[in-house]
Amino acid sequence: MAGQALDARVLRTRHDILRAALDLLTTEGLDAVTHHRLAEVSGYSRATIYKHWPTRSALFVDAFAYRPSGEHHVPTGDLRTDLIAELTMFRRGMERQRLDRALAALAALMTSVPELAQVRDNLVAEGERILLQLLTPVVDGAEREAAMRMLSGSVLHSALMHGELPSDDVIAATVDLMLRGLRSQPAT
Amino acid sequence: MAGQALDARVLRTRHDILRAALDLLTTEGLDAVTHHRLAEVSGYSRATIYKHWPTRSALFVDAFAYRPSGEHHVPTGDLRTDLIAELTMFRRGMERQRLDRALAALAALMTSVPELAQVRDNLVAEGERILLQLLTPVVDGAEREAAMRMLSGSVLHSALMHGELPSDDVIAATVDLMLRGLRSQPAT
Repeated sequence: MAGQALDARVLRTRHDILRAALDLLTTEGLDAVTHHRLAEVSGYSRATIYKHWPTRSALFVDAFAYRPSGEHHVPTGDLRTDLIAELTMFRRGMERQRLDRALAALAALMTSVPELAQVRDNLVAEGERILLQLLTPVVDGAEREAAMRMLSGSVLHSALMHGELPSDDVIAATVDLMLRGLRSQPAT
Repeated sequence: MAGQALDARVLRTRHDILRAALDLLTTEGLDAVTHHRLAEVSGYSRATIYKHWPTRSALFVDAFAYRPSGEHHVPTGDLRTDLIAELTMFRRGMERQRLDRALAALAALMTSVPELAQVRDNLVAEGERILLQLLTPVVDGAEREAAMRMLSGSVLHSALMHGELPSDDVIAATVDLMLRGLRSQPAT
């Protein structure tokens, strides 16, 4: 019982600090995520934070492992509707949880924290799960890979390279262009 | 004459330091770009570096303004060939000059250095110039915006979210999917 209570307390501490790290990351940027600033905003001591994460790299690995990859649309069976809804959910994660900033930070950290690769791969696989499920029945091989990256990439590129989220019109145009491309070839 | 010599020396100093900042950024990551480390690798004093750029933010703004956005393909007139070649050039900038790392860092910095927006917009506009030139005769409006972001976004997404550059097959599949989509609609 004592062990369980301790575990629960440790889990709570870790939860609070990782949550604070992600908040700092998406509100103030990568530089703000230091043991010092985290102690200030989370209310835990620097000693506690260092005990759990001796380095910033270790902290980033756990923070991104802890981060949900975003919500998904529940497919209805109409491919166009489902693709538009899923890209709109991707955009909503950027609007509401600043997923764009989290992904930009994650990508930038790969240069110095290569041990984040597995965490990134898990996060991206979960993020792309529904798109993959929707496209698998209609396309495969290099073309499926292209289709996946064109759809996700178009939202990502708008946010990261243009600093703006795609409008409803652009999301619909993206899906329609893709679907016309998929349907205008002989079935494989 | 003395003034011109001085200007040339100042320009050379700035060139060397900005070049060193970009090298640090793409080899060691954002955290490595400090006045201290820059003095070590560039051979200039910290005082000199602080004199030109009192803050890291100022340094980043000039470094990205100084950075070339990558080389371009010279269009031949065959749309498919030209789109594939231009996306391949984008990939080559990532392979050779680690453009992927520079763009990830730039996107991540937007959270804390909003004054980078204009520099980013210029860099992206120059980077997308040839794609825009190629697509403008064949598509417009929301669909052109979608097409632009699907093409660039697919390469960006591969590099930043999957940690791998798209293969020749995937680039060709991307362009073919896009062109079939564009051609299967009534001309506008």
